[in-house]
Amino acid sequence: MLTVNVELKERRYPIYIGENLLKDPSVYPLKSGDKVMIVSNETIAPLYLDTVTKTLENIGCKVSNVLLPDGEKYKTLQSLDLIFTALLKENHGRDTTLIALGGGVIGDVAGYAAASYQRGIKFIQIPTTLLAQVDSSVGGKTAVNHPLGKNMIGAFYQPITVIVDTLTLNSLPKREVNAGLAEVIKYGAILDLAFFHWLEQHIDNLVALQQADLQYCISRCCQIKADVVARDETEKGDRALLNLGHTFGHAIETHLGYGNWLHGEAVAVGMMMAAALSEQLGNISKADVGRLEKLLARANLPTISPDTMQPEDYLPHMMRDKKVLAGKLRLVLLKTLGQAYVTTDMDKSLVLSAISACTQTD
Amino acid sequence: MLTVNVELKERRYPIYIGENLLKDPSVYPLKSGDKVMIVSNETIAPLYLDTVTKTLENIGCKVSNVLLPDGEKYKTLQSLDLIFTALLKENHGRDTTLIALGGGVIGDVAGYAAASYQRGIKFIQIPTTLLAQVDSSVGGKTAVNHPLGKNMIGAFYQPITVIVDTLTLNSLPKREVNAGLAEVIKYGAILDLAFFHWLEQHIDNLVALQQADLQYCISRCCQIKADVVARDETEKGDRALLNLGHTFGHAIETHLGYGNWLHGEAVAVGMMMAAALSEQLGNISKADVGRLEKLLARANLPTISPDTMQPEDYLPHMMRDKKVLAGKLRLVLLKTLGQAYVTTDMDKSLVLSAISACTQTD
Ligand SMILES: NC(=O)c1ccc[n+]([C@@H]2O[C@H](COP(=O)([O-])OP(=O)(O)OC[C@H]3O[C@@H](n4cnc5c(N)ncnc54)[C@H](O)[C@@H]3O)[C@@H](O)[C@H]2O)c1
Ligand SMILES: NC(=O)c1ccc[n+]([C@@H]2O[C@H](COP(=O)([O-])OP(=O)(O)OC[C@H]3O[C@@H](n4cnc5c(N)ncnc54)[C@H](O)[C@@H]3O)[C@@H](O)[C@H]2O)c1
Ligand SMILES: [Zn+2]
Ligand SMILES: [Zn+2]
Repeated sequence: MLTVNVELKERRYPIYIGENLLKDPSVYPLKSGDKVMIVSNETIAPLYLDTVTKTLENIGCKVSNVLLPDGEKYKTLQSLDLIFTALLKENHGRDTTLIALGGGVIGDVAGYAAASYQRGIKFIQIPTTLLAQVDSSVGGKTAVNHPLGKNMIGAFYQPITVIVDTLTLNSLPKREVNAGLAEVIKYGAILDLAFFHWLEQHIDNLVALQQADLQYCISRCCQIKADVVARDETEKGDRALLNLGHTFGHAIETHLGYGNWLHGEAVAVGMMMAAALSEQLGNISKADVGRLEKLLARANLPTISPDTMQPEDYLPHMMRDKKVLAGKLRLVLLKTLGQAYVTTDMDKSLVLSAISACTQTD
Repeated sequence: MLTVNVELKERRYPIYIGENLLKDPSVYPLKSGDKVMIVSNETIAPLYLDTVTKTLENIGCKVSNVLLPDGEKYKTLQSLDLIFTALLKENHGRDTTLIALGGGVIGDVAGYAAASYQRGIKFIQIPTTLLAQVDSSVGGKTAVNHPLGKNMIGAFYQPITVIVDTLTLNSLPKREVNAGLAEVIKYGAILDLAFFHWLEQHIDNLVALQQADLQYCISRCCQIKADVVARDETEKGDRALLNLGHTFGHAIETHLGYGNWLHGEAVAVGMMMAAALSEQLGNISKADVGRLEKLLARANLPTISPDTMQPEDYLPHMMRDKKVLAGKLRLVLLKTLGQAYVTTDMDKSLVLSAISACTQTD
């Protein structure tokens, strides 16, 4: 088992990464008599809910659960209300612990519920998608969507522990695994050339879910994100680097309709666009852009714009992004592989030509 | 104008108290170009919304508003959603400031909306009831109700400024003014004998809304609460003293149905019960219990149990209070006037006899 410690101003908490951790009573910061509510969904519960429940009951906890319907479209205030109703019906007090068992959607909703129930109860994350394990469960951002905007309502709220059982990835659809690898590759590209290099050597093992490499990889990603978050807990500065490829990707997700491309797939193409723009500006070399493209392709990720989208389709969506300040397009670009930076007021014609460079022409 | 500074771990913020502050641009921490959303209700808006809007527009702010229906029963997730929708429809970003213009209900809902919108935007309180001016706008507790419990969903979230325009109390129903005085008297009783004594000399002026006394009184209450909160921001210890009379009062509010008695009225009787119990235990003197009773009566507040309630009706409600831990009744009692303390595991037959002592028998 590997451990990454997240150091925050007020306290630290551990992320445990290993096989069979769902069954391991020692990783749960709970004791006999504790009350627990597990939040999961109808897809994940049949796979893992019993295991977690039994482990906790063996510790002596009083365990109940609430299951949400599966999907991003249920990441809403209504789902939040389902959780509150379940907590209140069973008389859960301020001393209850809420556990998120699932992907980023469950983690985000349950985290916000934990932040809000009686103004804050203890929260444990058990992420079961690669994206949740390397990204959404680290950093304390929680949220639900609003019909008028994604992730518009939420809180910064940290868990007391994150438990990553890497065997849970065996049941995850391969396309979801690959989408998670886009975020993994992103960490290497923005902040850690050595890790990028390691990924080039081990990407096939990761795609094949080889346990030892997977665990190292997840721990490295958590460490990178934890370091960024520790420097910038409420997202004023450095944390922006984590958005490499995301403004372009956001345009793809919005244009195609959420759910048609997975987030990681859109981010993969977005990173290629950011790299192309960086190259045009005389930063990252053509050879390094090629390395990025090759690594993404080996993770079965797209590297060019969807057929149904024209270069002109991007900018209107990009200008509506949360990261736009006072009408100025802020983008994360690459100085070199392993070193990202934030631009302000990027020239729109250059952006358009970078998008075109990543568009199939035939 | 009087100023009370609330000192928190991370920052301080001012509470300004005076006449005509709604019109005074210098008390608003806003500048030309700032975007502002005012949250108010259909009762208060016709009285004060124009004044605040014009003052802010003169500063150069871009001002919009959202009006909720009036009443505790609209302190819900649905009202929260109305605020989010208004913010999103007008493209409000993270740099927007939310202003609560109203009583405790508006302050609690708007505060929680500010805490949650894009994970936290700036928040200003303009409390317009005495209760909100001396109590709910100080301390950072925000919340909405759930059908299964009051104030069950919320956040600790501090405003950047609180603006108390004491002239707004002139339009407040007298019964609401008096209910606010119950909380005022509570501060004297739990922590400040000198202030209690001052109240005995000035209560008639307060009931008559004499401005100078009102302002001093509000500033003293804010200072007392701010001191308690600074010592105990997230409510683990000292803050409990603020609940004098509230567990008994809660039983009255629940038994009669919320809204039949005002909160302050129920708290007034609750304080008498706590005082009677304290006297039985050999703490506060009979004479001092009499002083408390007389002061409450001069503020036109009830001091005995509602006719329709029997002593036996109290305990079941009291045992369901949030303050009950592991089935043990925790109560705030009075050592003397000006000095409260918290008991654990209070004997139920003593509690019953104190309740009986405050019940009309004929
Ligand atoms: N909080 C943050 O910092 C942050 C960061 C990035 C993304 N996010 C959010 O994360 C969400 C996306 O998360 P996601 O990619 O995990 O999607 P998801 O939670 O929807 O999971 C993807 C699918 O896999 C299923 N699933 C999950 N684990 C499984 C398993 N072990 N076996 C089989 N099926 C499994 C889910 O039921 C779902 O159908 C978005 O809402 C996004 O906004 C949050
Ligand atoms: N956050 C806290 O720490 C805290 C503390 C105590 C109470 N509270 C909450 O505060 C709420 C009660 O607050 P309240 O007593 O102010 O009730 P309220 O907000 O319902 O106001 C009482 C009534 O007076 C009206 N009103 C308000 N200002 C007016 C004015 N200047 N002129 C004429 N009418 C006016 C309101 O529209 C309402 O009808 C409860 O929801 C309670 O839970 C919160
Ligand atoms: Zn992402
Ligand atoms: Zn009160």
